[in-house]
Amino acid sequence: MKVVFIGAGNVATHLAIQLYEYRFDIVQVYSRTCESAETLARQVGATAITDISAIQTDADIYIFSVKDSVLANIASQLLPNSGFWVHTAGSMPIDVFTPFTARYGVLYPFQTFSKVRHVDWKTIPIFIEASDSKELNLLNTIANKLSDVVLPLSSDKRKYLHLTGVFACNFVNHMYTLSSEILEKAGLPFDIALPLIDETAAKVHSIVPLDAQTGPAVRFDNNVMDKHLKLINDDRTKEIYRLISESIHQKAIQKKQ
Amino acid sequence: MKVVFIGAGNVATHLAIQLYEYRFDIVQVYSRTCESAETLARQVGATAITDISAIQTDADIYIFSVKDSVLANIASQLLPNSGFWVHTAGSMPIDVFTPFTARYGVLYPFQTFSKVRHVDWKTIPIFIEASDSKELNLLNTIANKLSDVVLPLSSDKRKYLHLTGVFACNFVNHMYTLSSEILEKAGLPFDIALPLIDETAAKVHSIVPLDAQTGPAVRFDNNVMDKHLKLINDDRTKEIYRLISESIHQKAIQKKQ
Repeated sequence: MKVVFIGAGNVATHLAIQLYEYRFDIVQVYSRTCESAETLARQVGATAITDISAIQTDADIYIFSVKDSVLANIASQLLPNSGFWVHTAGSMPIDVFTPFTARYGVLYPFQTFSKVRHVDWKTIPIFIEASDSKELNLLNTIANKLSDVVLPLSSDKRKYLHLTGVFACNFVNHMYTLSSEILEKAGLPFDIALPLIDETAAKVHSIVPLDAQTGPAVRFDNNVMDKHLKLINDDRTKEIYRLISESIHQKAIQKKQ
Repeated sequence: MKVVFIGAGNVATHLAIQLYEYRFDIVQVYSRTCESAETLARQVGATAITDISAIQTDADIYIFSVKDSVLANIASQLLPNSGFWVHTAGSMPIDVFTPFTARYGVLYPFQTFSKVRHVDWKTIPIFIEASDSKELNLLNTIANKLSDVVLPLSSDKRKYLHLTGVFACNFVNHMYTLSSEILEKAGLPFDIALPLIDETAAKVHSIVPLDAQTGPAVRFDNNVMDKHLKLINDDRTKEIYRLISESIHQKAIQKKQ
């Protein structure tokens, strides 16, 4: 199957390399920047292009892995073709493609990707959606090569999934960032927080997060919380501390009721 | 060495069991509630007591693992003795013991403990502090039996460590809780977030958190963020979303400068 990749970011890179390993024929990689297109194209034996009109029209699949804000615009510039158009975005509805083509779908891998890190695709939940059941079957076959966990999901539900990722990944990582700043103040390396970070993540494999919650905010221990607030200089970080503590306490009360 | 445990909560339980395995002689476990005292005492071959005045005076070590707010009060009720008094609290200064005894210290394991989960003590960073160098040596010997990572740390710095734990564990877990609620809305099980949660934690072993940050808040993508805010019903959760997003964006800008 001939595949064109539109985008060469983190998701595109991991997905293209994995499909290449499963002997998909990646023919072109488009990116706005020449360097990105070439870096990915080189790894998957494809041609790098930076001109949308140079995208060939005889491919079987076109995978759009670009920023949400440019997806519709890029799709509108593709030459009409009979290929299967697929995007990988959590928050973009499937019907972004409706004005431009008849065969389309979504393949959303629920994971965080960095170019420098290997990920195990087999464990990544992949959520799929397509314009009709024939395309859904095709997408299902492709996704099942990649992962052991493939589920159909509507655009309406997928947007909640994306929001979940913001809390469970982006916001969690920011808590790590704030932690690292506090450790720096005490002259301690970030490494010493890793066993705690690992155990916190491991815990929710066997205990639901609400039951796993510990710390001064659960019982709203003002004594400890006031001490902590005095150690924080930045007003926004203070407010984050207060607000999350209130939220933890509120959930703890609701749980008891 | 004869050890008395004052407290039978999560930290006391894990610490007492581990010391018991290293053949420390746990003689008594005190707790306000009979059931807690007995549950732990049974596991470490100790006598359960609920009366502070029944604490024997001939032990070598007294380990206080109780809520911050009651520590000083409980210490004040102990009969005078020549044992080594040690507490395990992150935010309590070492000098909480000064009015009551001459030999004292702190042993702070930087980890989250639940009674139902096994933890690998060898990897837990333990921070120690003592009234003098002789006691520090003793505490160092004990802590080194438990863990491969033992570091002396002053009370002033330890309080920052405790605050770090609130962000890296308590607040992170609350982000998991909020995620689980959002997934529930979409009718999806929490399990499907686990690969993402694991990878987010694993990432910061090799990439500093600030560089690992991804998501719409990094470039303050109002388009995506507005969509997300519309999916959140609860005002406090909306405010958490806004505030953490602003904080992520601010750090991303500072990083570029």
